[in-house]
Amino acid sequence: MKKPWNVGLIGCGFMGRAHSNAYRKVGNFFDLAHQPVLKAACARTRSDVTAFAERWGYESTETDWRRLIDRKDIDAIDICTPNDTHREIALAAAAAGKAILCEKPLARTAAEGADMVAAVERHKVPNIVWYNYRRVPAVTLAKQLIDAGRLGKIFHYRAVFLQDWTIAAELPQGGAGLWRLDKNVAGSGVTGDLLAHCIDTAMWLNGGIDCVTAMTETFVKERKHNLTGKVEPVGIDDACAFLARFGNGSLGTFESTRYARGHKALYTFEINGEHASIRWDLHDLHRLEFFDHKDESIVRGWRSIHVTDREMPYMAHWWVPGLQIGYEHSFVHQVADFLNGLAEGRAAAPTFREAQHTQHVCDAVLQSASSRQWVDVPSD
Amino acid sequence: MKKPWNVGLIGCGFMGRAHSNAYRKVGNFFDLAHQPVLKAACARTRSDVTAFAERWGYESTETDWRRLIDRKDIDAIDICTPNDTHREIALAAAAAGKAILCEKPLARTAAEGADMVAAVERHKVPNIVWYNYRRVPAVTLAKQLIDAGRLGKIFHYRAVFLQDWTIAAELPQGGAGLWRLDKNVAGSGVTGDLLAHCIDTAMWLNGGIDCVTAMTETFVKERKHNLTGKVEPVGIDDACAFLARFGNGSLGTFESTRYARGHKALYTFEINGEHASIRWDLHDLHRLEFFDHKDESIVRGWRSIHVTDREMPYMAHWWVPGLQIGYEHSFVHQVADFLNGLAEGRAAAPTFREAQHTQHVCDAVLQSASSRQWVDVPSD
Amino acid sequence: MKKPWNVGLIGCGFMGRAHSNAYRKVGNFFDLAHQPVLKAACARTRSDVTAFAERWGYESTETDWRRLIDRKDIDAIDICTPNDTHREIALAAAAAGKAILCEKPLARTAAEGADMVAAVERHKVPNIVWYNYRRVPAVTLAKQLIDAGRLGKIFHYRAVFLQDWTIAAELPQGGAGLWRLDKNVAGSGVTGDLLAHCIDTAMWLNGGIDCVTAMTETFVKERKHNLTGKVEPVGIDDACAFLARFGNGSLGTFESTRYARGHKALYTFEINGEHASIRWDLHDLHRLEFFDHKDESIVRGWRSIHVTDREMPYMAHWWVPGLQIGYEHSFVHQVADFLNGLAEGRAAAPTFREAQHTQHVCDAVLQSASSRQWVDVPSD
Amino acid sequence: MKKPWNVGLIGCGFMGRAHSNAYRKVGNFFDLAHQPVLKAACARTRSDVTAFAERWGYESTETDWRRLIDRKDIDAIDICTPNDTHREIALAAAAAGKAILCEKPLARTAAEGADMVAAVERHKVPNIVWYNYRRVPAVTLAKQLIDAGRLGKIFHYRAVFLQDWTIAAELPQGGAGLWRLDKNVAGSGVTGDLLAHCIDTAMWLNGGIDCVTAMTETFVKERKHNLTGKVEPVGIDDACAFLARFGNGSLGTFESTRYARGHKALYTFEINGEHASIRWDLHDLHRLEFFDHKDESIVRGWRSIHVTDREMPYMAHWWVPGLQIGYEHSFVHQVADFLNGLAEGRAAAPTFREAQHTQHVCDAVLQSASSRQWVDVPSD
Repeated sequence: MKKPWNVGLIGCGFMGRAHSNAYRKVGNFFDLAHQPVLKAACARTRSDVTAFAERWGYESTETDWRRLIDRKDIDAIDICTPNDTHREIALAAAAAGKAILCEKPLARTAAEGADMVAAVERHKVPNIVWYNYRRVPAVTLAKQLIDAGRLGKIFHYRAVFLQDWTIAAELPQGGAGLWRLDKNVAGSGVTGDLLAHCIDTAMWLNGGIDCVTAMTETFVKERKHNLTGKVEPVGIDDACAFLARFGNGSLGTFESTRYARGHKALYTFEINGEHASIRWDLHDLHRLEFFDHKDESIVRGWRSIHVTDREMPYMAHWWVPGLQIGYEHSFVHQVADFLNGLAEGRAAAPTFREAQHTQHVCDAVLQSASSRQWVDVPSD
Repeated sequence: MKKPWNVGLIGCGFMGRAHSNAYRKVGNFFDLAHQPVLKAACARTRSDVTAFAERWGYESTETDWRRLIDRKDIDAIDICTPNDTHREIALAAAAAGKAILCEKPLARTAAEGADMVAAVERHKVPNIVWYNYRRVPAVTLAKQLIDAGRLGKIFHYRAVFLQDWTIAAELPQGGAGLWRLDKNVAGSGVTGDLLAHCIDTAMWLNGGIDCVTAMTETFVKERKHNLTGKVEPVGIDDACAFLARFGNGSLGTFESTRYARGHKALYTFEINGEHASIRWDLHDLHRLEFFDHKDESIVRGWRSIHVTDREMPYMAHWWVPGLQIGYEHSFVHQVADFLNGLAEGRAAAPTFREAQHTQHVCDAVLQSASSRQWVDVPSD
Repeated sequence: MKKPWNVGLIGCGFMGRAHSNAYRKVGNFFDLAHQPVLKAACARTRSDVTAFAERWGYESTETDWRRLIDRKDIDAIDICTPNDTHREIALAAAAAGKAILCEKPLARTAAEGADMVAAVERHKVPNIVWYNYRRVPAVTLAKQLIDAGRLGKIFHYRAVFLQDWTIAAELPQGGAGLWRLDKNVAGSGVTGDLLAHCIDTAMWLNGGIDCVTAMTETFVKERKHNLTGKVEPVGIDDACAFLARFGNGSLGTFESTRYARGHKALYTFEINGEHASIRWDLHDLHRLEFFDHKDESIVRGWRSIHVTDREMPYMAHWWVPGLQIGYEHSFVHQVADFLNGLAEGRAAAPTFREAQHTQHVCDAVLQSASSRQWVDVPSD
Repeated sequence: MKKPWNVGLIGCGFMGRAHSNAYRKVGNFFDLAHQPVLKAACARTRSDVTAFAERWGYESTETDWRRLIDRKDIDAIDICTPNDTHREIALAAAAAGKAILCEKPLARTAAEGADMVAAVERHKVPNIVWYNYRRVPAVTLAKQLIDAGRLGKIFHYRAVFLQDWTIAAELPQGGAGLWRLDKNVAGSGVTGDLLAHCIDTAMWLNGGIDCVTAMTETFVKERKHNLTGKVEPVGIDDACAFLARFGNGSLGTFESTRYARGHKALYTFEINGEHASIRWDLHDLHRLEFFDHKDESIVRGWRSIHVTDREMPYMAHWWVPGLQIGYEHSFVHQVADFLNGLAEGRAAAPTFREAQHTQHVCDAVLQSASSRQWVDVPSD
């Protein structure tokens, strides 16, 4: 008999949907000791949260997140709200002894993140950040190949995350759906939103980053603000690129923008080692490109691995070879891993502490873009 | 308030999982008048059906499909059993006034299919066959482009469905998971299993097929049979290819095999028209390739459309541009369309009658392979 | 010191250019005992042949091919004229003891081809047919892999050659540049022009073809004829598809058309064996796709081999890895191989006799399309 | 009647071959007022230059480049020698009134380049640098689309040039074939060898670069030197990456390395504009990827343009649609353009002056890598 695990979800937007779907599906495909129960959903607007709860089958609703955290029947708090609220909610949830699953980035700044790390560690609550791309099967397979030494010494890492949805100057900033353009709420632009994913994956696959030099640009300088109704300066970085040196001696290049016409959510990375190289692309997330120099010379080439076989990470839980899964499944895998960790008394990655490393890199990147200097990344 | 719609599912294998997942998810993503209720699951083995029901949340179980059909609390029967049982179950379900959702192919032969069409039409029960690939968004988009006249007069249609999972001569035939190799159960090999999909899509996109010439091959002539324990002749077609003439004057080529090393489930089709051409590939099902001769000559080329935007079929219900869905979603779309049809009093395609056209083509193909003659396809 | 080898070229069109370029370049890149000398060019129109000779550096010109063949200073006759002249020229050239390099297809029919084979064998003159695609390095590499047993038992062969240049009904037939649409001159449409290439490669890679069933279509039934000025019936096949059984037990599918919108010269083939599969595509002729089932399961995938390394066929003669060659180089390779054969006293493939096998298949295909029956291919 | 144009070529290595091939072919495919004559080849070693001249048809040889420049029968000097000799040869050739075609990079440093620019301008001799990739048809097409305003305002430019041929630590430095690893001879590593190409294309397509921040790395610190026989420090940059700001406000990222396993010569660039984006890749140089946001939303996608049609740059001179050309053809185009400029009395690009801009960027990149500061690029 499975043990119920009661989730209280805060924030009923895009991520609220992605997480709810994961909680509902995970038990159908994974054998777990716990069964997630959609206990309560929370959002500020009554009608919104009611409709959301009905659609997803939440048993109850709240409009004040503090009340949700006070409830005794909640085991875990899932933070799906905009970045400016992460710290406050996490501190309260940790104090209340709840497990915490927090959307990425952990916080707007490393300073906020540090408080959050301290809180979950002081209160010893299970915690994780939703850097979901680690659990796309092709990305997990990349990790396995690297850990198995298939690449040998690493020379290069490069990643981009390219979008094109904010090119129109008429697009306003702020408010529902557009808070990512409001610096006060988001903390930064593409750096915290998109590069944070790239940085998390990079350090997971290739270890820590020592130092960076960066540039940012805000192409559209002013936009109407939805909350004030006035044209206001845009504070976020529309684009950010940086060079990095990893602790293992390899070189990194990173770039993100929302002004790359033709790319919807093109997150790609490539890693070049002495013996082999790997590439991945979010637009075809079910494939991994792999080049192995050990192949015989006349048949050496980049292989396109269709990551749908049972032997491949997570895939024994789904369909049959050749039948692809999609974006949403990465969240299901994260819930499965988190619950397995819970059952076995170990933390599933990335914890707040691990995600805090990404905060440090983001801060260093933004500081470098501002100072026009190389900036060292604090090791903690 | 949504109207409950009680499903009784027969067969708890691969397709039972795919359909159950669709019933569970559809209400989270689509606004429908009906809410599917997983009322009862049915399989011959008690332990199997119990485990399945628990995993998927079925309220009850049966081990005799006749008992399931007798139940008054069941609105719809979903037939996920091997092909040799489709006819008998469907006839009983129709007589009981149940809606019927039947896995493809409709039956082993057109003769069986004819009885099934007659039954559902006599009893006027809603009915549909799970040719799910029609509802992959990229395929539906192909249909829209063709119907909008973007291709003009059609000259060519070509499709293949290539797999490689039966190459090993040691693989046995028959029994759970391997009934597709047992001619008595499956009716045919790749023709009914794989080409049926190709034929269904082809006639949906390009109209009826007039005549065919075909060849089949059984590469491994004998395999151990799991039910008898003896080495027995293999009766199915391991591979089948045929040429076709469509009613609209275009030419078709079709091929399927389970001996195409390197292909797991490579269903591809291409259609060439006077003005434009389209290609699709199940291994990257979220993309559609499109060539438009009306483009200016210096920038003419095949476009790779990442079918993830809100304007594209079904995609407004899922995530955001750039984030792909997968195989399982085609089943969700089919349930959504079926329930919308139910609410609006119209049939969702393909009905048994429409799927019977595919049976006729399959029969003609097998007959041609046997007689080494061109065979006309009956129009009904 | 190299031995001069005097070429007399008949026909100054597209193929005349391709061959002349090959003769001029071969000595710069290959070490050969012979040096081709562009001795004489021949075409019916004085002004044409003069301009051609000047551009390519031919030492002399003729307007009557019989006079060219009579010349003592000519070692080899290159036949680049339309198909209806191949037989007559070849017979005269053989009788005069000239080596013969004949454009493909060998002839309009197997009957014509038989005379040509008999002539070159009776007079013991070196002879070859320009099935140039065998000598695209990626295709030659495919041959090496197959001959080395990398694929194991072969199950399937499929090839298409798709073009789109005759879709417009306004396009006339006949005369310079359009003789390929004139059945009297060309013998057939896509069968002799395009499928002949596919068949030649197929039998080279996979052995002989036993029997075929085919269909052809002429989409535009009448076109203005450039020589008569009148609208006349179109006699050629605009499209042709056929199924084949190879002598080794594998199945083949072949298709060609000039009505596949979006494809300029898309010749592709794929061959599936027990252990491995291969794909090639003329639109990216410098790549070979290879799938090896012996790869470890988690990194198994189609490899895209960039065929530009020194170890790969012919490539040590060109540039450096990563720098591709193109279409024209296949002709250079054919001249190099022919001259190496000449120096070593052995025939370079395909000889007239070998090319005659393709004529037999083409005849069988056209006969099958006409009779709507399977047709056996004569073994000689 | 064509006017002879007598070429004296210095350096008989890889580039000597590529240029000689271009001189020999250009008249066969382009109608020009001048006919290149291979008048003299020059290399230090008598046997090398004799063999080279014989292979390529040079009329005479020299072993001292000063003697070549003194010859009255030479119209143009082609400098194909290592970088450390460019300045001295160019100065002498200019003083002798010869046209000069100089391999890239123009020189080891901007200081050397400045002398060369001054010399050709003082002596008013026609001059060009072999940045051949501008004349790959797909790249020229990119230029046309940008100049026609198809992209609108530009936001991003990114380029990489990735190779993997120096990963082995056993590879020595210096001497024939390996002078690119010898800093004294080459001036720099990947910066002058590979990034110079990327920078030349970038500024041609997107205008001047204002400032850069860079990092370089030398992965293998010591290698045996072929000339001294001793293990010596490696002075070149094995890898270099930099961020750039263009004068038009767009952001650039650039990276090059010889340690990217799996890439032979992967030069790629991408440019993102307000309305459209373009990508190109040297490994498939006959294709251009183009995304046009003005396409109707449901059929919007990246187009793969097979740049082989007559309407496309340079392609009317070659074969027919679908038949690709390769690397060597870019050199033929450069000769054709240079000779057309000569006939019309205008300079073909890039002149020494234009190529000097690339020297300035390279210097700034290396200075930034050393100083760890942003460095402004001098405008002249």
